[in-house]
Amino acid sequence: MRRALDAARDAAAKGEVPVAAAVVLRGEVVAVAANATRSPPDPTGHAEIRALRMAAQKLGDERLSACDLYVTLEPCAMCAGAISHARIARLYYAASDPKGGAVEHGARVFEHPQSLHRPEVYSGMGEEEAAQLLRDFFADRRK
Amino acid sequence: MRRALDAARDAAAKGEVPVAAAVVLRGEVVAVAANATRSPPDPTGHAEIRALRMAAQKLGDERLSACDLYVTLEPCAMCAGAISHARIARLYYAASDPKGGAVEHGARVFEHPQSLHRPEVYSGMGEEEAAQLLRDFFADRRK
Repeated sequence: MRRALDAARDAAAKGEVPVAAAVVLRGEVVAVAANATRSPPDPTGHAEIRALRMAAQKLGDERLSACDLYVTLEPCAMCAGAISHARIARLYYAASDPKGGAVEHGARVFEHPQSLHRPEVYSGMGEEEAAQLLRDFFADRRK
Repeated sequence: MRRALDAARDAAAKGEVPVAAAVVLRGEVVAVAANATRSPPDPTGHAEIRALRMAAQKLGDERLSACDLYVTLEPCAMCAGAISHARIARLYYAASDPKGGAVEHGARVFEHPQSLHRPEVYSGMGEEEAAQLLRDFFADRRK
C-alpha cells in the first residue's frame, strides 16, 4: 500500500486524480499505476485497470489468480469488474468511496452471481492518508 | 450494429469470445473493436473497453458525450462502468446476458447514484444473430 500511496501522490503532481494501485505476487510488486485519464485521453485509465493490464502483460497471463491488488480508493464498478475478470485473490483498499465506489457501495459488484469471481476484500489500511490526498487535490482545484 | 456483428464474427475466427463494439459519432463509425483478452493477455480486453479507448484517442477527448456505443452483448459491470465514465450518450446492445450482464441483470450499474452518468439504453436489435454467434463459439469449444 505504501507504493500505491506514493504513486497516488505523484499522480496529483501531474494533475491526475490521486488514486493508485499495485499488483503484488508473493510479496513482490509486479505493477504499480496511478490514474491517467488525460494524456492520452482514456476514460478507462483508472489506476486499477492500468495496473492489471501491466501485470497481465508482464506475467503473460490474463488471469492473475495468485496476485493481490492494493488500491488507495474503493474501486468503481468498472474496476471492480476488471478485478473479477483478472481473478485477483485479495483486494486491499485504503479509503472507501461513497460517491463512486462499487464494492461496499452502489452496484456492489462482487455480491451478484454475475460476478464470476469474488476476491477476498480488506479495507482501511492507509485510509487517512489516501483520503487526505484526494481532499487536498480537489481543494487545490477549487481555488 | 452490422459492423459490430461482423467484428464479432472475425473475433470467433481468432479464438476470442465473439463480442464486438462500435463507437458512432453523428452516423460515422469512429472505432470498432472485438474482445481480445488473450494476445497480449489483458483481463480488461473486452470489446467495449477497447472501442472506448480507441475512440477517445482518435477524438482526443476522454469524454465521448456526443457518441453512441453499439455492442453485440449486454455489457458486464466493467464495461458498463467504462461506458458511464466515457459519458456515452446512447447504448445499444443486441443480446442480453443473464450470466454476466450488469445493465439489466446483476449489478445494474446505471441504476445506482454512484454511476455518475447514465446513457439511454436500447436493446434487442440483432439479438438472434449475436446470440447464435456465441452459441456456435461455445459449442465448437466443447467438441
